Amino acid sequence: MRPLLWEGRRLSVLDQRLLPTRVKWVGLRTAEDAFSAIAEMKVRGAPLIGVVGAFGLALEAGRMGSTPLPRFREGLERVASRLVSARPTAVNLKWAVDRCMDSAARAGTVPEAKEALMEEAEWIMAYEERTARRLGEIGERLIRDGDTVMTHCNAGSLATVDYGTALSPIRVAIEKGKKVKVVATETRPALQGARLTALELQKDGIDTTLISDTMVGYAMSQGMVDLVMLGADRVLRDGHVINKIGTYQVATMASRHSVPFYSVFPWSTVDMKTEKEGVRIEQRSPKEVEFVRGRRVAPKGIKVFNPAFDITPPELVTGLVTERGIILPPFYSKLEEADGAPYEAVGGGN
Amino acid sequence: MRPLLWEGRRLSVLDQRLLPTRVKWVGLRTAEDAFSAIAEMKVRGAPLIGVVGAFGLALEAGRMGSTPLPRFREGLERVASRLVSARPTAVNLKWAVDRCMDSAARAGTVPEAKEALMEEAEWIMAYEERTARRLGEIGERLIRDGDTVMTHCNAGSLATVDYGTALSPIRVAIEKGKKVKVVATETRPALQGARLTALELQKDGIDTTLISDTMVGYAMSQGMVDLVMLGADRVLRDGHVINKIGTYQVATMASRHSVPFYSVFPWSTVDMKTEKEGVRIEQRSPKEVEFVRGRRVAPKGIKVFNPAFDITPPELVTGLVTERGIILPPFYSKLEEADGAPYEAVGGGN
Repeated sequence: MRPLLWEGRRLSVLDQRLLPTRVKWVGLRTAEDAFSAIAEMKVRGAPLIGVVGAFGLALEAGRMGSTPLPRFREGLERVASRLVSARPTAVNLKWAVDRCMDSAARAGTVPEAKEALMEEAEWIMAYEERTARRLGEIGERLIRDGDTVMTHCNAGSLATVDYGTALSPIRVAIEKGKKVKVVATETRPALQGARLTALELQKDGIDTTLISDTMVGYAMSQGMVDLVMLGADRVLRDGHVINKIGTYQVATMASRHSVPFYSVFPWSTVDMKTEKEGVRIEQRSPKEVEFVRGRRVAPKGIKVFNPAFDITPPELVTGLVTERGIILPPFYSKLEEADGAPYEAVGGGN
Repeated sequence: MRPLLWEGRRLSVLDQRLLPTRVKWVGLRTAEDAFSAIAEMKVRGAPLIGVVGAFGLALEAGRMGSTPLPRFREGLERVASRLVSARPTAVNLKWAVDRCMDSAARAGTVPEAKEALMEEAEWIMAYEERTARRLGEIGERLIRDGDTVMTHCNAGSLATVDYGTALSPIRVAIEKGKKVKVVATETRPALQGARLTALELQKDGIDTTLISDTMVGYAMSQGMVDLVMLGADRVLRDGHVINKIGTYQVATMASRHSVPFYSVFPWSTVDMKTEKEGVRIEQRSPKEVEFVRGRRVAPKGIKVFNPAFDITPPELVTGLVTERGIILPPFYSKLEEADGAPYEAVGGGN
């Protein structure tokens, strides 16, 4: 289940809000199209929104008429800021747009800059695809034959380009002949677990049990979970994992039940600069809580608190699975060390 | 918001599945009507299902023709077993039906037994109503002016006859002039928090913020919660609290954030006999997770695990609020001691 299709300057994305009951592809032609697709969560998942942001910038650049290079760069800067603002928490979006801006900055002419942007967007897409497979190969070693893995939200193909982040080790473990089952949380409010994770695992024939978010602790208390694998939207240098709301509770319950807890993500998710206090946790519309698939589930006018992410402290994290290896505590020094490696060396390269 | 209406041998209940968008009253004339109302969750909440079960038995007895006393008792026994099986976890249903059966057993004739059953059902309703108010008076001492109380599921008027269990101290604290806010979890799968708690607190003009179940930990980490108050479906003599699925996670997060955690319930919820291992945790239909208000939210054919309750161990419980006082650890000896008191002395009496 690939969530986007790139065919010679034409970008289409699957409108993930309508899954699992409807499959609808949407064409994205402009940066504003990409902005809306990201902000409205037609596309979601940290790696995927980075890819779509990069293409949004490249496509918009392609539409800019003939203009002097300084003015082109000014225009590009505005578009880049707008795209990055679509969702503030996952660092991959900023990472991807920044990479594109750097590649444009190195170009000497407007046509060269346009070409560089397009090449960079394609590199990012290829990087995320190759890295997802690599995460699977690295992470599958953590899964024993017969294990049941709990996952939260959707860190699968639909969050990336293919394979996924946290679901990739599960897929590779099964390819290698291990028996692996999955417990997927439904992940309110946007229900990515019920709508997306359950769907893509079912299509792959993987034994999956869906639970409501209230059932995490009880499932663990019943011995139903051998390890937790989920994604990340941003990982800080001290090992704080910023991920879909509810992750912190899953980690706390896992720690209580001595269930290993792994976050699986490409290096594009690592933010070595920002402190915990500097991370903006996106607050989304009350409507996401008040309505489910168009049906009202709460009284009109009720106040709603709807943070989209939470922060899991490093002491609850068993390990971080990246394409640069499995990183165990103490996270600070080991992340610092791995941060020196080039993306190309491991992710595939241009 | 009273969930049932008893007017001289006519019982009507609010169909709580349709709230908050539709108000529909349903008449219950037979034990089978009561059974369905309880099993299908038209009525829910430990105290309320006890009351409805008792009336179901009394109404059914009233419909039995003239028959010898032994045969009447045999028939009654079958009806009682059927009613108790409607929902296995909350002990209040069994408590109420057992009380009715005891009162019938003391009668010397069929008409006397019928009368005794009806009187007992009315006593149980009155007991739960008076006790709810009493729980409020006792529990409100735990709430300081300016506090925000987190609650889970619905332990309000709609779970009892009036006032509620966990919501009663909040209501009384506000009556006494304290400023109190509430954070209500939506409580998937049946959404009692979003549909019922939010509705009844809003009707009372109480400042309430609704969150998804994934947001409990993050809300606590942001200092948004001063204490937790929720109900119980069964409390064991060693202090284990069996309550709506998700309670265990709320308790774990509260403990992590040093937020006091109170379970508030009438003595009819106490089960001094059963061991933890002997409590049956009801598993409900996968449809509750697969659908929300008639809309499919997960792919067809996905496996679902849907336990309706979980078990919170005593080390996570700060205190138990009952009409016999606030019980602090060690729970075993103090519950044992309080268990000796008669219901009448504190609950109101016949």
